[in-house]
Amino acid sequence: MTTSSNPLNNIRIVLVNTSHPGNIGAVARAMKNMCLSQLYLVAPQKFPHDEAVWRAASAADVLDSAVVCETLDEAIADCQLVIGTSARERTVPWPLLDPRNCMQEAYKEAAGGHKIAVVFGREDRGLTNEELQRCNLHVHIPSNPEYSSLNLGMAVQVMAYELRMFQVSGELDGNALADWDQPPANAEALERYLVHLEETLAEIRFLRPEAPKKLMLRLRRLYQRTRLDEMEVNLLRGILTSTQYWVRKAKAAEEGEERGQQGD
Amino acid sequence: MTTSSNPLNNIRIVLVNTSHPGNIGAVARAMKNMCLSQLYLVAPQKFPHDEAVWRAASAADVLDSAVVCETLDEAIADCQLVIGTSARERTVPWPLLDPRNCMQEAYKEAAGGHKIAVVFGREDRGLTNEELQRCNLHVHIPSNPEYSSLNLGMAVQVMAYELRMFQVSGELDGNALADWDQPPANAEALERYLVHLEETLAEIRFLRPEAPKKLMLRLRRLYQRTRLDEMEVNLLRGILTSTQYWVRKAKAAEEGEERGQQGD
Repeated sequence: MTTSSNPLNNIRIVLVNTSHPGNIGAVARAMKNMCLSQLYLVAPQKFPHDEAVWRAASAADVLDSAVVCETLDEAIADCQLVIGTSARERTVPWPLLDPRNCMQEAYKEAAGGHKIAVVFGREDRGLTNEELQRCNLHVHIPSNPEYSSLNLGMAVQVMAYELRMFQVSGELDGNALADWDQPPANAEALERYLVHLEETLAEIRFLRPEAPKKLMLRLRRLYQRTRLDEMEVNLLRGILTSTQYWVRKAKAAEEGEERGQQGD
Repeated sequence: MTTSSNPLNNIRIVLVNTSHPGNIGAVARAMKNMCLSQLYLVAPQKFPHDEAVWRAASAADVLDSAVVCETLDEAIADCQLVIGTSARERTVPWPLLDPRNCMQEAYKEAAGGHKIAVVFGREDRGLTNEELQRCNLHVHIPSNPEYSSLNLGMAVQVMAYELRMFQVSGELDGNALADWDQPPANAEALERYLVHLEETLAEIRFLRPEAPKKLMLRLRRLYQRTRLDEMEVNLLRGILTSTQYWVRKAKAAEEGEERGQQGD
């Protein structure tokens, strides 16, 4: 609690590619009702829009200060914890929490000064698999299996309500990551590491065109759920750099040998 | 649980004197999403209405089976527990619970076979004092004191969500790894991986005698907390084996070159 007087100010709601401006307004109202204020809009289809203002009622200030981004990566770049809302089971399971457990984690980390994003997808089809794979955790509202699609504003209301309940409960028990010795890596640093990893795996020919396509996805899932800290990212990238040094040296020697043989 | 296979069938949502038919539709959708089906409408201003059907989306069946009453007394007559939603403090204090505690009480009684009503007031001014005094308990969503008025659909969503959470709590145990696609690696497999990692880091000279002693400790902490699955351990060991192939090749070329130079 020392680093932020109000943890909810460290939590942003990110809406991806929203179709209906009325939903954006309803989200703004739900947020303000629950004491949230940070709204990020990734490529909204219609914004600003009168319908959003009308549905926001007395929360027009949340709309006015909304940050509009072109890409999800831009909206989450400085966040240490990225949570994606997932409507349905995916082929590759990711750590999946219910709203209570997930928002408790978010609230605790926000209280420790981390920046958190809770990301909501399109009205008709949610987040893409690629977008979900940008997230550390997935959260699922335990809806009716026979009618599971919540309205976007309602889904935000549920998460915001859970956050608000943690805020008013005044209770914070110990959190594994709040007392960590290193700051958590942000989403941008993690992406840079994953690019470096893929590049290196190609160089050592572990990643080949004929290899199972899910290899990078499995490694991404592993490192996303681990919540790497900054020093760990530095260590892992140091290992990749050392590996690249040796494989390049071996390939140079191979080529030198081939040239030597050609010279014979 | 003996008296009803689904306690939520004993819980009705009662909307009093609703102005906007769109809100009735949104309530129907929120209810069905959360497995509730009993909707009672006390003197709705516009019902039935196309706007209600549109907002209900795939929950038109909830609208179709809604019971329209002239008075609140009629709507709650057969209920053993009546809960009123209260937006603000009243002059006469009433037992006032937060949504979690209140819906827990409602769910327990419903499971015991009682009929329960959760009553919501008008969009602009809630329930009258007289209506609130028809209730056994009052429930209050802990909203922002500076902007406390939730949209009607959102308020129903919060209560319905809490009820649904009690319904599924038997099925969900907060364990994010319960439905994983791969078996978790056992301790022995993890240890073998860590030995292989240390050996490889020494070969690529990332792990040197003068390096910080905590390097392996940090990597151990990283992989221990990740809870690696069996396939992930295989992938990570495969990467190490490929790396060893290249570093050994590079070193062999180096030695060959040295021998060649000595031969000169």
